[in-house]
Amino acid sequence: SLNVGPNGEMNLPIWQKFKKSGKMAGCVTTVPITHATPAGFCVSTKSRNSQEDIAEMYLDLGFDIMMGGGLNYFSPELRKDKKDMFDAFKSKGYQVARNRSEMMSTNNEKPILGVFAEDALPYSIDRNNDKTLQEKIPSLAEMTQKAIDRMKSHKNGFVLQVEGGKVDWAAHANDIGGLIYDQVAFDEAVKVALDFAEKDKNTLVIITTDHGNANPGVIYGKNANTNFDSIQNYKHTNEWLLNEIKPNSTVAQVREIIDFANGTTLNDDDAKTVLSYYDGLHKEEGGLYNYKKLPFKAFAEMQQKSNSVGWISMDHSADYVELAMFGPGSELLKPFIKNTDLHYLMLQAAEVENKF
Amino acid sequence: SLNVGPNGEMNLPIWQKFKKSGKMAGCVTTVPITHATPAGFCVSTKSRNSQEDIAEMYLDLGFDIMMGGGLNYFSPELRKDKKDMFDAFKSKGYQVARNRSEMMSTNNEKPILGVFAEDALPYSIDRNNDKTLQEKIPSLAEMTQKAIDRMKSHKNGFVLQVEGGKVDWAAHANDIGGLIYDQVAFDEAVKVALDFAEKDKNTLVIITTDHGNANPGVIYGKNANTNFDSIQNYKHTNEWLLNEIKPNSTVAQVREIIDFANGTTLNDDDAKTVLSYYDGLHKEEGGLYNYKKLPFKAFAEMQQKSNSVGWISMDHSADYVELAMFGPGSELLKPFIKNTDLHYLMLQAAEVENKF
Repeated sequence: SLNVGPNGEMNLPIWQKFKKSGKMAGCVTTVPITHATPAGFCVSTKSRNSQEDIAEMYLDLGFDIMMGGGLNYFSPELRKDKKDMFDAFKSKGYQVARNRSEMMSTNNEKPILGVFAEDALPYSIDRNNDKTLQEKIPSLAEMTQKAIDRMKSHKNGFVLQVEGGKVDWAAHANDIGGLIYDQVAFDEAVKVALDFAEKDKNTLVIITTDHGNANPGVIYGKNANTNFDSIQNYKHTNEWLLNEIKPNSTVAQVREIIDFANGTTLNDDDAKTVLSYYDGLHKEEGGLYNYKKLPFKAFAEMQQKSNSVGWISMDHSADYVELAMFGPGSELLKPFIKNTDLHYLMLQAAEVENKF
Repeated sequence: SLNVGPNGEMNLPIWQKFKKSGKMAGCVTTVPITHATPAGFCVSTKSRNSQEDIAEMYLDLGFDIMMGGGLNYFSPELRKDKKDMFDAFKSKGYQVARNRSEMMSTNNEKPILGVFAEDALPYSIDRNNDKTLQEKIPSLAEMTQKAIDRMKSHKNGFVLQVEGGKVDWAAHANDIGGLIYDQVAFDEAVKVALDFAEKDKNTLVIITTDHGNANPGVIYGKNANTNFDSIQNYKHTNEWLLNEIKPNSTVAQVREIIDFANGTTLNDDDAKTVLSYYDGLHKEEGGLYNYKKLPFKAFAEMQQKSNSVGWISMDHSADYVELAMFGPGSELLKPFIKNTDLHYLMLQAAEVENKF
């Protein structure tokens, strides 16, 4: 559930509080714009997975810019109820962007809905190595710049949530190439926000995450530095390469695909093991983030020999996470803070009374 | 090597700089007092493993209090060269303590050497559940208090290094009971230091570690809280229980030992798997920290089902580590600092010119 209390009470999401106080509000993400994190800022719902419903709630609530993936929940060909959400948003005055150039040519006078992929956007490392994807899909930094441009001139100010959502998905997949390059893409989006805040002098930037995931780390060893640096040669995610392998691929083809994607040669035994997961008998465990049951974990363990990266699991962890702030309001930050207290800190920093 | 530069140059260790500037200097640890960390503060040597030689260097250098494990490197029965290092320290004016009560009855007027176990001291969780060990071995907090009492009245001040060294060893063994209770024992030693500094008002306390290890973390799941709390029922380390199991133990006995040590029942299949490592054919990898090749890793993976704790490896990791300071000089601490810069920060905080 999202914004539902232990006794079923529906709490008013923080982005609605900001809207009611006269501010503009928006979200951009690399996962579906209807996914748990942006939806958690925007709506109350008993099921975080009812993404078709969440798309309709966004329409009713009228946020000022919403961009990410999620055609599955907006497009009439892909929604179960065949509703054309794009038409619905247009009738409410939205500009709708379906690719990078459409996004770039939206104006900043009217609200914007941008949806660029069926589910999540592609991983940054896969996009970086594919010209078609680069043309079709905006980067997180580009979406962030557009969102700021759309809202920065509003007289009562604005709030913007920017999520590097696929960092989390990469950790679920123990996919180090996916993780590092999406973290870098997030970093570039942070720069866009900081550059704006530095000039504006009246904007608070908060940088954090909602949880740890899989606790990746570089493992000691004589070649740890060189091994870790070999990730610079990766051209594609494990998701990409494991989807390139087919049940009828040969061992030589498996090795070729991995060599192409990682710049690293897998030995015959490991290649055979990878292939054994495609025979319909051996499948890897995994729910939400591995619905095809591909050998993400087994392959990450093989990669460990050449990249020195280890993982504790394929799930969230309980570690303390970093929280950094820049700009007016950052003086409210204590050395340690509960995640739930951030709600009140954000209202206070924006001088919005919590009266709703 | 310790304090040896890339071109073989021998650097003066920081505890020697402090001694030369007229301060008292000491070390206490839960591992051998000749082990890498205390030795790194005290001596220059090409081999960190030449612990017999390191014991002799300590004698020459005349530190004011040195306590921990390491009979292997001091006792004539255990040293390869049969030298009686205890006699040598006594002739140099040292009080020698071989157990907790001898340590408690040392006076604070003369230097102290305390050596309480052949190699490292026992893990705290094993000590907590064994009356004999509690009587024989002091806790890290008790050693810390003794060291402060010995040195606190010195007119030019003192430096003390306190190491919870077995936290590292527990991580090498993926041994969560060992790790948590030794971390708590370290925390209690930190309290002793902070209590003193708070009253003294002229002492800087620095709390940090030299590296991450095995990146333990709690893994998400419906029962993660309850599972993690089950560690409160542990009476002994995995090291203790795996050493209780013998090649001729039955599956029922294996289950009984684990039930006693962890308060958790292992299933028959897992118990059989544990036992299979004792047949002389199946042995676990492992060097320095698993010389008996016991199934530390395999058993930690079984425990994961009941305690929700995961590990990335059995070796050090490259993570950033925490660094905290309390007292005068703590204003020198920047948000991020290189480990090698701490050398200069400590000298500066103590107003010792780096002229040696």
